[in-house]
Formats: sequence, C-alpha cells, structure tokens
Amino acid sequence: MLLEKLNWRYATKKMDPSKVVPQEKVERILEAIRLAPTSSGLQPYEVIVVTNPEVRAKIQEIAWNQTQVTEGSHLLVFAAWDNYTPDRINGMFDLVNEVRGFKNEGWEAYRQRLLSLYPPRDEKVNFEHAARQAYIGFGIGLTAAAFEGVDATPMEGFDPDKLDEILGLRERGLRSVTIMPIGYRQEDGDWLVNLKKVRRPKDEFVIEVK
Amino acid sequence: MLLEKLNWRYATKKMDPSKVVPQEKVERILEAIRLAPTSSGLQPYEVIVVTNPEVRAKIQEIAWNQTQVTEGSHLLVFAAWDNYTPDRINGMFDLVNEVRGFKNEGWEAYRQRLLSLYPPRDEKVNFEHAARQAYIGFGIGLTAAAFEGVDATPMEGFDPDKLDEILGLRERGLRSVTIMPIGYRQEDGDWLVNLKKVRRPKDEFVIEVK
Repeated sequence: MLLEKLNWRYATKKMDPSKVVPQEKVERILEAIRLAPTSSGLQPYEVIVVTNPEVRAKIQEIAWNQTQVTEGSHLLVFAAWDNYTPDRINGMFDLVNEVRGFKNEGWEAYRQRLLSLYPPRDEKVNFEHAARQAYIGFGIGLTAAAFEGVDATPMEGFDPDKLDEILGLRERGLRSVTIMPIGYRQEDGDWLVNLKKVRRPKDEFVIEVK
Repeated sequence: MLLEKLNWRYATKKMDPSKVVPQEKVERILEAIRLAPTSSGLQPYEVIVVTNPEVRAKIQEIAWNQTQVTEGSHLLVFAAWDNYTPDRINGMFDLVNEVRGFKNEGWEAYRQRLLSLYPPRDEKVNFEHAARQAYIGFGIGLTAAAFEGVDATPMEGFDPDKLDEILGLRERGLRSVTIMPIGYRQEDGDWLVNLKKVRRPKDEFVIEVK
C-alpha cells in the first residue's frame, strides 16, 4: 500500500496549471506534516503555504525558474527555526503540560536539560538540527501527497536568502530549507514522467550486522 | 488512512524483548526507505540493520542507555555520506543511465554541474546536506513501520562518533546521523503509551500567503 504510493510518486517536472488541489487534500497533507515526529517533540519549523500567484512568480525567479512553482496550485515552504531559544523550548514543554493536564518531574527535568543544552549552543548548530527535523516532515508530506493522488516536487534548488526575504521569514525567526509545489502532472511536456525510478539496489544501500 | 497510521505511532519508550519483527515487515520498511526521494536522486546515505545482540548492547551504552536499542529486534542506523566525491556522484549518474538504457544531454550537463559544485565544497557542508536527505528516509521509515503495525522510536540521543567506531562507519565514508529501533511496544512500563500526542495547533504551525 505505502510502497505502491511511493512507487507512484516522482519529482514531477511539469504540472498542469489549470488544475487546483482541493482544499481538503491540502488540509490532509498539512495534517500529516503536523503529525510528523521531531526531536524532543519541539517541531522546530513552520510550513508556509503560498497560493498567491505574484508571490509564487517571484519565488520561481529565485528557484532556477522551475515552472512547477507557479504551475502547481500551492507551494509549501518548509522553514526551520533559526535558533533554539528558551521561549521556544518552554513554549513546547508548556503546551505538553497543558494538553496532558499534568506536570511531571521527569519531563520538567528534561526541559531543564534542553534549556541548558540548546540555547547556549552555536546558532548554526541549532539551525542545522532544526532543519533536519523539517526534512522528516518534508518526507512525510511527499508521502501524504501521494496518498491523495497529488503530485509534488521536492525542491532544494532555490536561493534560501532571497526566499526568506520574499516571505519575510527572518523577522519571524525562520529560515527556508526546502520547498514543495503540489499540483497535478501534465504528462505531455514532463520528460521524467515515463522514465524508470532509479534507486541503488538493496545490497548497496543496506548493510546487515548480524 | 495515512493520518490514522501517523496518529497510531509514537516514540515507543518500552519494547517487548520477546517479540521479533518478521523479516518480510523489515524488508518492506527498508524498501520504503530505499524508495524515499533524495536531492538529485543521489541517495547519499546507507542504512545499517543491526540485529547482533552484543553490538546492540554496546550501542545502548553510548545511547543514554535507552533500552529500546536492545528490547527491539532490529536497530536501523541511518548513516550519511561523509562527503560528496566525484566517484559517488558518477556512480549514481551511471546507474541512472544503465537502468534507463540511454544517455541524455541534459542529464549529462546536470552531472557536470553537480561535479563542479559539490566535491569542491567544504566537507561539512556536504555532510550536512547528505544528513538532511537521510532524514527524508527516516521520516518515511517511521511511517512504513506504522503501516506494518511495528513500533519504532526515532532517536538522536547517542554519541555519533562512538557509534561510528562501533560499526566501523568512518572507514566506509559514512557518519551516523540518527537511529531507529523497531519492535513491539510493551504497554506496561511504557510511560508514554497512553499519553496524548502533542503538536502545535495548525494556526501556529502553518502560515498562509494568499
């Protein structure tokens, strides 16, 4: 079931600009991303959903002119926290206490541990850690799109500084790490659609330690 | 369907050491990871499947003594390429040509572009880039485990240098980035099993640009 979906999906190179992904599908894709696990449950990233055509046209310009950015109906931008701050860490631990309805000694000790470990660390180390977490959601988002029969293109080919500027991300303490247009493949004009998916064979990808 | 699976899974804190994940389930989880997309299709990581109990006992020691490492039946170690080399890049482009049965000018130009861009770059930048790709597979692997009804614990709490040493990863040009024991939850003794999953509400996780 999952394997079928993963075989169905591919990095769509040409999308049909006349087709729009229905809102309920977008919602389920976003919900899958929201449910994705992250280190210590901090969810150190946000997802910006860009539908505005002018904004997407600007983004296409700083994304090697990849046309899916505007041919798709929605562009998902994954933007990681630029740093781990006490406020951000406390925000998540407080939310956990609020939702679960109790305070727990072990959990509070873990909060203190992260507070003593993360904020003093180099900002770049923290950002890289946060960026990795965003990639968990990114992988799950691509999978979720496939379950909806929606095409998606994983894209790193863009200028993150310029994208941050276009979307005003730095002011929010965010930095873009990867983007994903979603839409529907336009088979004529997509050079990749009929080509075989290529992956290294299992014996070159998996090592067994028995 | 996918959302149900994502809601079912959680970071299992206690696994039942008497239960073994059947091989066909392990194979499907690994296949999902193998099918995960990566930047330029380079698949810049490998997955080490550790079943050996002595090796896992050693790993548990350098993983904050988290008991799932030995209580699960298999430990999946995600290890990223330490660098992008011309050999590695050419290996993947050659494989693509071999599988698809033809050479393509655009594809060859893209090969040259990556060859001129990646190997001269700082090794750390390349490793971080590769590590991010491993996290796409990591997220999809966690999802695949949930589809198999198999519990999995995403874990970053270990000493990567020591893990590399235990598994001899540096000699293979690999560096461990994240690990995932798989097995079956042992409900008594797992403090997390009955607690609510906590995620930021959608309006604090998703920003819309309309």
